[in-house]
Amino acid sequence: MKVKAAVAYESGKPLSIETVELEGPSAGEVMVEIKASGVCHTDAYTLSGKDPEGLFPAILGHEGAGIVVEVGEGVTSVKPGDHVIPLYTPECRSCEYCLSLKTNLCQAIRTTQGRGVMPDGTSRFSIDNQMLHHYMGTSTFSNYTVLPEIAVAKIREDAPFDKVCYIGCGVTTGVGAVINTAKVEPGANVVVFGLGGIGLNVIQAARMVGANMIVGVDLNPNKKALAEKFGMTHFVNPKEVEGDLVPYLVDLTKGGADYSFECIGNVNIMRQALECCHKGWGVSVIIGVAGAGQEISTRPFQLVTGRVWKGSAFGGARGRTDVPKIVDWYMQGKINIDDLITHVMPIEQINDAFELMHKGESIRSVVTFN
Amino acid sequence: MKVKAAVAYESGKPLSIETVELEGPSAGEVMVEIKASGVCHTDAYTLSGKDPEGLFPAILGHEGAGIVVEVGEGVTSVKPGDHVIPLYTPECRSCEYCLSLKTNLCQAIRTTQGRGVMPDGTSRFSIDNQMLHHYMGTSTFSNYTVLPEIAVAKIREDAPFDKVCYIGCGVTTGVGAVINTAKVEPGANVVVFGLGGIGLNVIQAARMVGANMIVGVDLNPNKKALAEKFGMTHFVNPKEVEGDLVPYLVDLTKGGADYSFECIGNVNIMRQALECCHKGWGVSVIIGVAGAGQEISTRPFQLVTGRVWKGSAFGGARGRTDVPKIVDWYMQGKINIDDLITHVMPIEQINDAFELMHKGESIRSVVTFN
Repeated sequence: MKVKAAVAYESGKPLSIETVELEGPSAGEVMVEIKASGVCHTDAYTLSGKDPEGLFPAILGHEGAGIVVEVGEGVTSVKPGDHVIPLYTPECRSCEYCLSLKTNLCQAIRTTQGRGVMPDGTSRFSIDNQMLHHYMGTSTFSNYTVLPEIAVAKIREDAPFDKVCYIGCGVTTGVGAVINTAKVEPGANVVVFGLGGIGLNVIQAARMVGANMIVGVDLNPNKKALAEKFGMTHFVNPKEVEGDLVPYLVDLTKGGADYSFECIGNVNIMRQALECCHKGWGVSVIIGVAGAGQEISTRPFQLVTGRVWKGSAFGGARGRTDVPKIVDWYMQGKINIDDLITHVMPIEQINDAFELMHKGESIRSVVTFN
Repeated sequence: MKVKAAVAYESGKPLSIETVELEGPSAGEVMVEIKASGVCHTDAYTLSGKDPEGLFPAILGHEGAGIVVEVGEGVTSVKPGDHVIPLYTPECRSCEYCLSLKTNLCQAIRTTQGRGVMPDGTSRFSIDNQMLHHYMGTSTFSNYTVLPEIAVAKIREDAPFDKVCYIGCGVTTGVGAVINTAKVEPGANVVVFGLGGIGLNVIQAARMVGANMIVGVDLNPNKKALAEKFGMTHFVNPKEVEGDLVPYLVDLTKGGADYSFECIGNVNIMRQALECCHKGWGVSVIIGVAGAGQEISTRPFQLVTGRVWKGSAFGGARGRTDVPKIVDWYMQGKINIDDLITHVMPIEQINDAFELMHKGESIRSVVTFN
């Protein structure tokens, strides 16, 4: 069938709105009508050409929401009409990783997803008989897409697509890092580095679970007001701190952070995030994605005296299990998404969304389909 | 009173057996007759002068066992005649750290212990009216020593001093890292870097808790037989591995170690220990002490994809609570200490113990007192 998609023909070039051919779902696959899709830094990273695993031409997008319109043979967990959020981290519930109960990094379709194709090794998208790559197994910059059944989370039908699409990546990444990866407990002191979309979601999750101090660290003082609305209790601008930032934060938190989160992707800040943690038990979680080849460092004494260094991908969330819960929290008012979505525009203006992001004028832009 | 002690007058020089003056216990302190003391790498590190916190003159030794002979005012948890193991990591059960239930790093007497004195700021040891520093709060290279009440673990009376003294440091460090810090579960695959005293204790604890593969890594093939006796299932000599060690270990363990332990103190091996861990959930524990100022590094991707980097001090053990349990395990035959104590000698020959260590001829030497 003919669908409308934003095609990334090559790196560094704007996306091109095209009419694209989409094959229907094979066995174990579903076709989803995408109603809305967030535009994320990861899309921009791949489009820039810096992503060593980026493939072109491709249909980008990994933060969508929509409605199942057709299911392939053997699909039992969803049916046409179901509202879903596509999952770039699937949940097969039968691979070694899912069954370990220790990780959300389902490996069932990892290899083919990384090659930009469906599990059978082929693409469902083409234009003028030229194959187009899938992206992160989701390709939500298209008004219809095809996904494996294990890569869709069924959600309630009263949730607005142009808000809950954000749960497909940013919200879950931040909220999940607090709940699943760090397991922040009530009364804990938390330090969050970077007050962009991820950082704000970390902050609101920390508030939701009853954290005590929630310290936000950012060079941009304009971030303060919104971060406070999301639950930040103390703002620290490193430019205004005399001396080193780490001892300042240790002092502010009376001994160090019980939990810290790096939401930027800067390896030097990852070190500060670890070292501002409390001796004996502080846990630092890396969420930001560093540039290719960059390394983190510290003295091992930091770990031997009880600090723990870990990371989080997709917030440690098992998509089919956890994403519907976060949708519920949004609908119950526990999680604020509305204030994070600063721009909504039709897919035809998707390049404006990237421009707003690069200029730092948006927290999240969402594109919609007619 | 007059006691017999091995005095470290200055760094880099042999210890000197002297008759030393020891004051009795003040309030909250106990005097212990030391019956046996292990000679540990940490004693050698301080004696060498490389320890930036080393103080001289001092009475070294931190791995002892003995009998309480006198208690100061207000002491209630032990009485004369009790058998005890001195604790360089005390357990006050009332500081912020003890009460956190998240760490064993009791801070109650941290400052004075680091300054080589008792909690009131003075030393109990002197010679010719010259003050001698306490060491690690224990100073077990003396036939009598004085310790705070919170720094002794009461143990059963049928345990042999010249064996269970090793529980005062090395045994607990290795066994505790497995049980308390990593929390290795039955069926887990474990990789242990360095088959010295700590590594062998890690191995036997991994066996005790039901680990599956227990891989030992060491450049010295002579370590293989004893490590196998302690439970090692696979021996890897990096010199005999073609290509990189990390992918070799990942392959051997069918995906990576569930838990790895660095028992050497080499920052490059700490990186290998992390990176040989299983994607999604592998936990790497640093036990070895690196040289001053040295740093560990890795790509943050290692953590974002689920590996966890942590460290362990005194095996994460709460001394007064956990040390008596390990003594029980030894008496029940669950933990082998006898084969680790390769040399026993009177205190007068303590310099031979350091020489055996430096030559790599001992696993553990123990000095005894008449």
